[in-house]
Amino acid sequence: MYQSLKEECFEANLQLPKLGLVLFTFGNVSAVDRARAVFAIKPSGVDYDRLQPTDIVICDYEGRVVEGAMRPSSDTKTHALLYKTWPEIGGIAHTHSTHAVAWAQAGRDIPIFGTTHADHTHQDIPCAPVLTDEMIQGDYEHESGHQILNVFKEKNLTPSEMEMVLLQNHGPFTWGKNAEKAVYNSAVLEELARMAYLTLKINPDTPRMKDTLRLKHYERKHGKDAYYGQEC
Amino acid sequence: MYQSLKEECFEANLQLPKLGLVLFTFGNVSAVDRARAVFAIKPSGVDYDRLQPTDIVICDYEGRVVEGAMRPSSDTKTHALLYKTWPEIGGIAHTHSTHAVAWAQAGRDIPIFGTTHADHTHQDIPCAPVLTDEMIQGDYEHESGHQILNVFKEKNLTPSEMEMVLLQNHGPFTWGKNAEKAVYNSAVLEELARMAYLTLKINPDTPRMKDTLRLKHYERKHGKDAYYGQEC
Amino acid sequence: MYQSLKEECFEANLQLPKLGLVLFTFGNVSAVDRARAVFAIKPSGVDYDRLQPTDIVICDYEGRVVEGAMRPSSDTKTHALLYKTWPEIGGIAHTHSTHAVAWAQAGRDIPIFGTTHADHTHQDIPCAPVLTDEMIQGDYEHESGHQILNVFKEKNLTPSEMEMVLLQNHGPFTWGKNAEKAVYNSAVLEELARMAYLTLKINPDTPRMKDTLRLKHYERKHGKDAYYGQEC
Amino acid sequence: MYQSLKEECFEANLQLPKLGLVLFTFGNVSAVDRARAVFAIKPSGVDYDRLQPTDIVICDYEGRVVEGAMRPSSDTKTHALLYKTWPEIGGIAHTHSTHAVAWAQAGRDIPIFGTTHADHTHQDIPCAPVLTDEMIQGDYEHESGHQILNVFKEKNLTPSEMEMVLLQNHGPFTWGKNAEKAVYNSAVLEELARMAYLTLKINPDTPRMKDTLRLKHYERKHGKDAYYGQEC
Repeated sequence: MYQSLKEECFEANLQLPKLGLVLFTFGNVSAVDRARAVFAIKPSGVDYDRLQPTDIVICDYEGRVVEGAMRPSSDTKTHALLYKTWPEIGGIAHTHSTHAVAWAQAGRDIPIFGTTHADHTHQDIPCAPVLTDEMIQGDYEHESGHQILNVFKEKNLTPSEMEMVLLQNHGPFTWGKNAEKAVYNSAVLEELARMAYLTLKINPDTPRMKDTLRLKHYERKHGKDAYYGQEC
Repeated sequence: MYQSLKEECFEANLQLPKLGLVLFTFGNVSAVDRARAVFAIKPSGVDYDRLQPTDIVICDYEGRVVEGAMRPSSDTKTHALLYKTWPEIGGIAHTHSTHAVAWAQAGRDIPIFGTTHADHTHQDIPCAPVLTDEMIQGDYEHESGHQILNVFKEKNLTPSEMEMVLLQNHGPFTWGKNAEKAVYNSAVLEELARMAYLTLKINPDTPRMKDTLRLKHYERKHGKDAYYGQEC
Repeated sequence: MYQSLKEECFEANLQLPKLGLVLFTFGNVSAVDRARAVFAIKPSGVDYDRLQPTDIVICDYEGRVVEGAMRPSSDTKTHALLYKTWPEIGGIAHTHSTHAVAWAQAGRDIPIFGTTHADHTHQDIPCAPVLTDEMIQGDYEHESGHQILNVFKEKNLTPSEMEMVLLQNHGPFTWGKNAEKAVYNSAVLEELARMAYLTLKINPDTPRMKDTLRLKHYERKHGKDAYYGQEC
Repeated sequence: MYQSLKEECFEANLQLPKLGLVLFTFGNVSAVDRARAVFAIKPSGVDYDRLQPTDIVICDYEGRVVEGAMRPSSDTKTHALLYKTWPEIGGIAHTHSTHAVAWAQAGRDIPIFGTTHADHTHQDIPCAPVLTDEMIQGDYEHESGHQILNVFKEKNLTPSEMEMVLLQNHGPFTWGKNAEKAVYNSAVLEELARMAYLTLKINPDTPRMKDTLRLKHYERKHGKDAYYGQEC
């Protein structure tokens, strides 16, 4: 019944080790079916090289299992809340990629230093603050989703203009129109994190890039008169 | 007689170069047979791509060769003492992986900065102090084991809750329920060492993560109500 | 009609991912045909593993499409101006390679610290300053080319003695007698950027190398009595 | 006539790109035949993936070509002087490996921080000072060899106890009983350079390791009662 959704999810999960974004079982990708209001997600703690499409678990927007013999990713409720709140997203990826985790552990937003960054989003990549003790001791993974939503509200960001976030002391979550794009954004975020790290090591006083250039690059790829890429 | 033990040891050793944890002949993995009170270990100074299962050496808990034509790893007595003292461990791995060695050379514990770390252990990864001159000039490899045991006693750690250690000016030792898990822990430790390094370069004043989050992540994977992974 | 030019361009583009210089669709390489006054360039936003020789777009020195069904690289006008102004160059490569981008984001010239650098050029690798707001809001990619030409004029450099440049807040452009050499220079620049970064982290006060050694290495490879390489 | 010598040299050269120690044509390895007083060396500026055993050039201890149609490595006279002066060495390797070059560009000896280093040599790895202007403008490559010999004399080191050196503003040279061991030492040096770099970034005040441990590790592998490796 959910075969093509499971396969989309399966294929996107396999991209994580190919792109060097995960070690062992770390990380997970999900894909949503908006018509049926369910999403497919990686089962918890399964190695990528043993994963089968039939292992993929189907859940609803509360994170409850709808179909599947295995336990879903321990981060399922974070995915669920993002899908429930943001109808415009089609896939979510979570990794522990090295440089993105380092920024999350340092508790810092990733400053927008160049066009590689501005080609993908026009703001600093936000680091959502660590959860309060009450959130951690409550419904932890659900509250992790709330912490991501909170930082987007506070900074007045939409999930379409900013498809990536860091969660302090944890790591990156990314999303997109589908699971493949969510994984693409995980790889881009890791590279932006690495470039920003090196930039600050070369010049600790590097300022954010100027507004005109920041907006120019974002608009040439994402604006209404975009001319990057093919029209198809 | 020890064929399956040798093969477990052999397979685990081959994982070290595949995971990028060793150069040339550096490193060694052992696997214990508790019923027979012996362990299998890599022979000293043999390249991983020439290693054969029949080359694996069988030793007792004093580090004496029980079976095998080759000389065992020069670190055999360190393995022996850990097996003798800690009945709960089934395999040990020793590497000179780059970032773990850098922390060992700097003589620093690896601070617990994030959930990648807390998913595996709930404390800083200890760096056992360099051996005294007497220990070095005495039964060196045996005393290296003592130095590891000493730091665990002093910090009141068990080998089940902390499956990894650094030995100052030397490098990492890791263990687990079997040799495969010991190697897994070597790869995890290298990644934690790299993440912690980058974290401090981004923010030198990064504090350890908060206790609630630290314990939450450890418990969701290792506690009595763990819900990470599959139940099988 | 432009088949061999398209194939030269196609082959050179495929070298970028093989050399680890690009992620996804980032980067582009072009090759010029001086007799026909046109150049071949990668189409915009196409993955390297889906790219076909027939996808390559042919443009004139104003950056207008002469042949091809696809939209050319968004950086086409930068290539066009460099070809138009510098008749001695035969190919251009643009990447977002990690360490070169970091120097560009930091807004710093790459100092000449050693013979690896001097084997390729005898000066610091210049970082052209970020474009003015007027340039960004005008004909942006054309002006990017101007900014590169400006820094060469100001520093009195020729495109033969210095085949690489950084554009502030953006990244590297390289060129050479043909597209293959342009890509070669992109790989060399990334390595020089990485070495210079590490050098300053080991010794922040490292001076530029001495003039005699700087010129000796450049001349033994590029001077009239060069003795590096084969004469053919 | 020199077929087996050429093949030893050829095979050792091919190890350089496999070990990630060179980019394009950078680097060269030579192998000596003491009975005939000649050495085989890579031709200058030839890509490793096009190199053939018949391309290898045979030279005497003055660096003059004895056999071969191609021009030998531009660093040939450096190799020649080391072979002439140090009868105990059988092969020499020269690379531009990233971290070793960074230390050479920074003009710093690599401090002995741990057992990975002490397993291979018991002293800091010396950085020979940059050549004087007279040396550079004279017989440059021959004088480069002299600068290496000078730092060994000054520090009272033998080429058997220290099989590696940095040449300031240039990069590493390594040697050993044969060409294969020289290449092995190039890989070890690059790893020691990387570990020492990271160590100082974690703790800038890290002292050299204590003498007892330094000598213990060197002796257990290289001393008269060595017990590392197999006896054969």
